[in-house]
Amino acid sequence: MKTLADIGEDELVRRLVRGRWHGKDVIEGPGDDCAVVRPPRAGRHLLLKTDTVVEGVHFTAETPANLIGRKAMARVLSDFAAMAATPRHALVTLIAPPTTPLQRVLGLYRGLHAMAGRHGVAVVGGETSRGDSLILTVSLSGDAPARGWVRRHGARAGDLLFVTGRLGGSIRGRHLRFQPRLAEARWLAEHLPVRAMMDLSDGLAKDLPRLAGGAGLGFAVDPDSLPRASGCTPDQAWGDGEDYELLLAMAPTVRPASLAAWRRAFPRVPLTCIGRLTPRPGRRTQTAGGWDHFRA
Amino acid sequence: MKTLADIGEDELVRRLVRGRWHGKDVIEGPGDDCAVVRPPRAGRHLLLKTDTVVEGVHFTAETPANLIGRKAMARVLSDFAAMAATPRHALVTLIAPPTTPLQRVLGLYRGLHAMAGRHGVAVVGGETSRGDSLILTVSLSGDAPARGWVRRHGARAGDLLFVTGRLGGSIRGRHLRFQPRLAEARWLAEHLPVRAMMDLSDGLAKDLPRLAGGAGLGFAVDPDSLPRASGCTPDQAWGDGEDYELLLAMAPTVRPASLAAWRRAFPRVPLTCIGRLTPRPGRRTQTAGGWDHFRA
Repeated sequence: MKTLADIGEDELVRRLVRGRWHGKDVIEGPGDDCAVVRPPRAGRHLLLKTDTVVEGVHFTAETPANLIGRKAMARVLSDFAAMAATPRHALVTLIAPPTTPLQRVLGLYRGLHAMAGRHGVAVVGGETSRGDSLILTVSLSGDAPARGWVRRHGARAGDLLFVTGRLGGSIRGRHLRFQPRLAEARWLAEHLPVRAMMDLSDGLAKDLPRLAGGAGLGFAVDPDSLPRASGCTPDQAWGDGEDYELLLAMAPTVRPASLAAWRRAFPRVPLTCIGRLTPRPGRRTQTAGGWDHFRA
Repeated sequence: MKTLADIGEDELVRRLVRGRWHGKDVIEGPGDDCAVVRPPRAGRHLLLKTDTVVEGVHFTAETPANLIGRKAMARVLSDFAAMAATPRHALVTLIAPPTTPLQRVLGLYRGLHAMAGRHGVAVVGGETSRGDSLILTVSLSGDAPARGWVRRHGARAGDLLFVTGRLGGSIRGRHLRFQPRLAEARWLAEHLPVRAMMDLSDGLAKDLPRLAGGAGLGFAVDPDSLPRASGCTPDQAWGDGEDYELLLAMAPTVRPASLAAWRRAFPRVPLTCIGRLTPRPGRRTQTAGGWDHFRA
């Protein structure tokens, strides 16, 4: 079985980029010192985000390669969803032991490119280095209307809290197969009075205090109202990480007809009111749980 | 001594980003799901690049933290130099064992921010994760005039080959303290007939074949003509990696007066003709040496 050490860096890069960087906004793809692309159109801001998946943290040695690549790309797409933004161009950094089988790396990139392609993202460059364990880092650029992107910290007291999808138990497989809510987020920003939004990567227990606290607010959540993934307890829906659903705050003026329009537009994705934001910072219904990268 | 495990991820991020992301083009810095910045001005392209430094590959456990951060930022700035581009916004990914002392990580970021600040770059976001060894990945966006950036593969047969600075022996310390040639590159692109350019990260022995081969050309280099760092042999100047100098191809019509202007503009940085590009692909004066990440 061929390894990275067998083929060397230049041949690896040739295999990874072959025929991959096409996109009408791409002027120069992999192969130069930087990628060169067309900037956002007038009236749009440039958005930037990077994210990383690490063997032993975000996946295991047994995780199928294509699902690792899929997850690496989907996580950062999920951050673009959280801003109601449009992703465009990705850079990919691979760190791998020289003993890594070539087929495993090609599998990673297959999963990564498939997820990128589904959302119109071109992989325009990247970097490779050897290291002790397998790590994939994706940096994404894209854009959003200068007056149409959604902050994480724009909520006000009295706003209603909603989540998309169902929460909890993603470790049983959904953390590898989730769908970044890009189309959903853009629809929400366009049709509903969304004042704040983020994606749930570390679990509601950690992420909701971030959304509320950043706006100087507290929150009241009814644990029984949480939309739970099949077989999950309210505690799991509250504390488990890696849901990659959207958490959003809407003005309390949101109209029932608008919520009905959501159900018609996305019949398979529930949008559930789980509580509201309160004026006092730090007020919480529950506090335990959630994921900390350095304490876990 | 406090470690990352002692303070946790949220407090670490608070310490890393505190007061750091100011910049007039930054609309939303760290703290949201993506960074939001102003796009390039009309008539300019968007440039993107990512690069990574890994413990045990690009630095050791004994390397002072600020020099690691400095190098992580300077390497990717050097790629922007290679395009004669202007860097603007950086994203930083830190992977570290939970046992890493907090002071070491703060030192990394001090070195990184100092180098970024010197070149007008704002760090607008990033990501942290635990992992087995220390890794710092920097993704940079910036811009260049749509008609003023320099390709790696734009050379023609007969072009003259030049390098900036002196080559070889960077392992003795210069690989941690090099100056990315940003101002030099923009000056060269503006004043001299530069047709191709790249930065020397893997050594002339590996990088020159890339510059020539990508244009379907060969090269003829006189080993004795290589500008050598103090105490280096021609073999070291040819084969050692991490010079981070510019390698460029200029039209043979370049005028001596222009080269004299270079010496006045950058009196401390030699610009040396080392040979020329030839029509036959694959013709080489020397072939050994250079750095391969998966074979080394």
